[in-house]
Amino acid sequence: MRKLLLAATLAASLPLAGHAQTAQELMAGSQKDTADVLNYGMGYNLQRYSPLTQINRDTVKHLVPVWNYSYDDNKSEESQPLVYKGVLYVTTNSATMAIDAKTGNQIWKTKVEYPAETPRIVCCGIINRGLALYDGKVFRTTLDANVIALDAKTGKEIWRSHVIDFKDGYSQTVAPLVADGVVITGISGAEYGIRGFIDGWDPDTGKHLWRTYTVAGPDDPNGKTWPGDTYKHGGGSTWITGSFDPELHTVYWGTGNTGSWNPTQHPGDNLYTCSVLALDPKTGKIKWHFQFSPNDPYDYDSVAEMVLANLDVGGKPTKVVMDANRNGFYYVLDRTNGKLIAANQYGHQTWAKGIDEDGRPIPSEVTDKVRKGEAVDVWPGAMGVKNWSPTSYDPQTGLVYANTLYFGMHYKPVDVQYRAGLPYWGADIDWIWPKGPRGFLKAIDPLTGKSKWEVPSDIPRFSGVLSTAGGVVFTGKLTGELEAFDAENGHKLWQFKTGSGIEGQPITWEQDGVQYVAVSSGIGGVYDLFAGDERLSKVPAGGSLWVFALAK
Amino acid sequence: MRKLLLAATLAASLPLAGHAQTAQELMAGSQKDTADVLNYGMGYNLQRYSPLTQINRDTVKHLVPVWNYSYDDNKSEESQPLVYKGVLYVTTNSATMAIDAKTGNQIWKTKVEYPAETPRIVCCGIINRGLALYDGKVFRTTLDANVIALDAKTGKEIWRSHVIDFKDGYSQTVAPLVADGVVITGISGAEYGIRGFIDGWDPDTGKHLWRTYTVAGPDDPNGKTWPGDTYKHGGGSTWITGSFDPELHTVYWGTGNTGSWNPTQHPGDNLYTCSVLALDPKTGKIKWHFQFSPNDPYDYDSVAEMVLANLDVGGKPTKVVMDANRNGFYYVLDRTNGKLIAANQYGHQTWAKGIDEDGRPIPSEVTDKVRKGEAVDVWPGAMGVKNWSPTSYDPQTGLVYANTLYFGMHYKPVDVQYRAGLPYWGADIDWIWPKGPRGFLKAIDPLTGKSKWEVPSDIPRFSGVLSTAGGVVFTGKLTGELEAFDAENGHKLWQFKTGSGIEGQPITWEQDGVQYVAVSSGIGGVYDLFAGDERLSKVPAGGSLWVFALAK
Repeated sequence: MRKLLLAATLAASLPLAGHAQTAQELMAGSQKDTADVLNYGMGYNLQRYSPLTQINRDTVKHLVPVWNYSYDDNKSEESQPLVYKGVLYVTTNSATMAIDAKTGNQIWKTKVEYPAETPRIVCCGIINRGLALYDGKVFRTTLDANVIALDAKTGKEIWRSHVIDFKDGYSQTVAPLVADGVVITGISGAEYGIRGFIDGWDPDTGKHLWRTYTVAGPDDPNGKTWPGDTYKHGGGSTWITGSFDPELHTVYWGTGNTGSWNPTQHPGDNLYTCSVLALDPKTGKIKWHFQFSPNDPYDYDSVAEMVLANLDVGGKPTKVVMDANRNGFYYVLDRTNGKLIAANQYGHQTWAKGIDEDGRPIPSEVTDKVRKGEAVDVWPGAMGVKNWSPTSYDPQTGLVYANTLYFGMHYKPVDVQYRAGLPYWGADIDWIWPKGPRGFLKAIDPLTGKSKWEVPSDIPRFSGVLSTAGGVVFTGKLTGELEAFDAENGHKLWQFKTGSGIEGQPITWEQDGVQYVAVSSGIGGVYDLFAGDERLSKVPAGGSLWVFALAK
Repeated sequence: MRKLLLAATLAASLPLAGHAQTAQELMAGSQKDTADVLNYGMGYNLQRYSPLTQINRDTVKHLVPVWNYSYDDNKSEESQPLVYKGVLYVTTNSATMAIDAKTGNQIWKTKVEYPAETPRIVCCGIINRGLALYDGKVFRTTLDANVIALDAKTGKEIWRSHVIDFKDGYSQTVAPLVADGVVITGISGAEYGIRGFIDGWDPDTGKHLWRTYTVAGPDDPNGKTWPGDTYKHGGGSTWITGSFDPELHTVYWGTGNTGSWNPTQHPGDNLYTCSVLALDPKTGKIKWHFQFSPNDPYDYDSVAEMVLANLDVGGKPTKVVMDANRNGFYYVLDRTNGKLIAANQYGHQTWAKGIDEDGRPIPSEVTDKVRKGEAVDVWPGAMGVKNWSPTSYDPQTGLVYANTLYFGMHYKPVDVQYRAGLPYWGADIDWIWPKGPRGFLKAIDPLTGKSKWEVPSDIPRFSGVLSTAGGVVFTGKLTGELEAFDAENGHKLWQFKTGSGIEGQPITWEQDGVQYVAVSSGIGGVYDLFAGDERLSKVPAGGSLWVFALAK
């Protein structure tokens, strides 16, 4: 266990996701297009579910690698690949690549050139989470806060739009979303005291269309939830891609923690941190907001994926947005209006007595103490009950498959002065480790938060999750194994040990009658950097992309 | 095609190989020990042949990866792994590793720490070719010229012996050989005007036992083959591990090119460059020598593997040492006395009219011109008809499987002044590329040099070769594919594309009834660095170790 003076990283940078290859129509149906993987989350709904069945609970034991591609990069590989017409597109922090999906032969690779000081300034991980495809272009973000469009055929840069000065702690890792013809991106850096936002860009020219701040200012009635000038460094990163309902023309985007963490430095609800925003993609206008953790002290940010589904709620088919929140509660909201449908605990937490009918948490004694500036022990730790690693929703089983965390923290709020480009965390933390497993892969009923099954792991999993109509749930371990589980009961069906740790996001598609599964391998993310887990010292760095299929 | 002012690299650093885990007896039978791979070359004879048959010409199509291990290193991965009692030992230039052979889990990794200036000074590749095992220790060499012994169980350093000052251009990449209880190592750096040697070390203490210079000095009658003081920078690197006949107590070690290449700077035979030395491992005393290319202008060094076999020569079983020489001739010598048995062309060459009865080349007009200081076109180019990539000798078929090269060079000798630590090449070269393939995998009759079959490759192969009693020949491509061919006819049976280019040395062994094949992947060697082949720009760097077995 390692003492961390300024723990953060945990709520790093926050972006936007999604995209389309030729037109909005193509994207709107992308979750049903089994030949392609057109956006972050495998569909605008971010369900990460595939109707493919060739690889299933009976055949998955025959899954073998078909090719591997080295990224020539030794950072955390958290990017989700896309696939369009037999070409696989993928990013690292340092390059964008197009690869023949069948052979693994590189078609093009375009490097990202960074100013020498970038790595020292980027707060929370030298990573990138993926890209967007739309109308023959590939869109990505860079650590030094640029949005770039590349020609999907050649990799040549078409336009580049500067977002904001990275020397003030702003950074980008997010996969863009293309919704209603607008490229939407988020920002990272709440731990550096940024004021978060979401941007809209013209896909053809890179022209800036709109910016919506996630920290309400004086021109917004919700600005009064920030005392004085505190909103200027109020955090609210947006580093995970939002979901999109093309019928409602609404984007759902999560927002990060406050800057600083110390709640006594900015008493009030601190809107719109730790919230989900429902946005008009054409204008960025906020249609409604829902805040999960007002005046959050613990880095329980809410950037992670906002999953769209149509659930049966009390016998009524309901359009919902769902969130496995870092604070330990699983939320189901009516996505037409932001009203709470359910909020149930899905992991151990001690910070709240519960959630009231309006969705507002009822603080526990622990949180009351913190708001008086006292040190406490609290669960979950700053990495949450679930971190950024995306869940999968399987409409067949009705279950959400999630890599959850099980450890707490000693927490002490400390006063911190804002200085541009320097950490602005405001808390002194140290982890509380349980004796047994530190994480579980859980199959969760979204309306109750209860698990149908749980699979423990001594070292918690930080990979994304993928489920398929074949009854198989894929995820990966920090020790390198890509794993397959039975969706019904969590029985382990298969694994393969890749060269480094897996923090990537598995995808699947079908080409010429063969179902493929791809995932990036490459350790170096938040747990590896900040947990001080000695067991990971034997997992080598070194990023690469893996593609699997059934043995012939 | 790229103009090279100082082409070399081609005859980089030259070491020694072989070793044993508990005693000399174990090592002497190592080529028959199918459960382990105890030394460089898979046996003291360097035959790289295995009697295993589970993976054979019928079953090899079911070969699949069973695990991968990232080296976290983006240099050329040319190391041959060893296996002993279920543990796989392997090196990169920057680390030594022990890995559970069945699971791919790292047991230990010990980094090599280098002075900051090492990479700038090392002439010809940031690489390492492997290690030796003997009596519970692992022995390796370092780029900055140290021989190191590590505890095989823990990876902890037991001793370290400084060889010579690397700032004068000396370097080490060689896998050590342990013969008759002596650790034997070579040296690299002929292109920097070193005076080459072979060293003997005490395995327990690292005490220096002997040094045998490969460039004869004034105290040696053969010293008169060097005019004046030219022997002081005469080259003669020793960067590939020798073979060993434990019955004859003789080590066979190849020597490199002259320093400088320009033959007019040091007229004479320049013994013992471009030769094979038969050595007493206890004392380093030269029992006999055979020179392949006297006064060599072309970098046709002879460091590569000296393979031992018992051949039927005119009806008589004969103990031979065999060499697929860089100069384009395949040599068979009586290893008891160094007498020539056969020397036949096995690839295109224009530098010699032939080899006379005593083994001395008869210079062509091309070489006569060069010795007058004139520029010429000559075949093969400085990378030879075969470079360092080790061949395999299959005693079942009686054939030698070799990755051969097919390109020439424009060559001009130029005068060069020796300056310590700076290149001392003495030639201006540029490649001559043929229209078709630049290389062939050949199945060669060692006594005639003729091919039974040839498999072309547009980009030449630089991987080692492995043959097995299953009738399968394994090798790899610079574009990443590990390949299997039918030993009888060269038909391609199988391939798998690894994440980077293959320049490693495949091995095979059996554990708990399963036959495994392992190879390192990682591009960056001599052809990649010096050929200017644009096609390799799409092959990413990034080293890792691959282990394969038949699908269950």
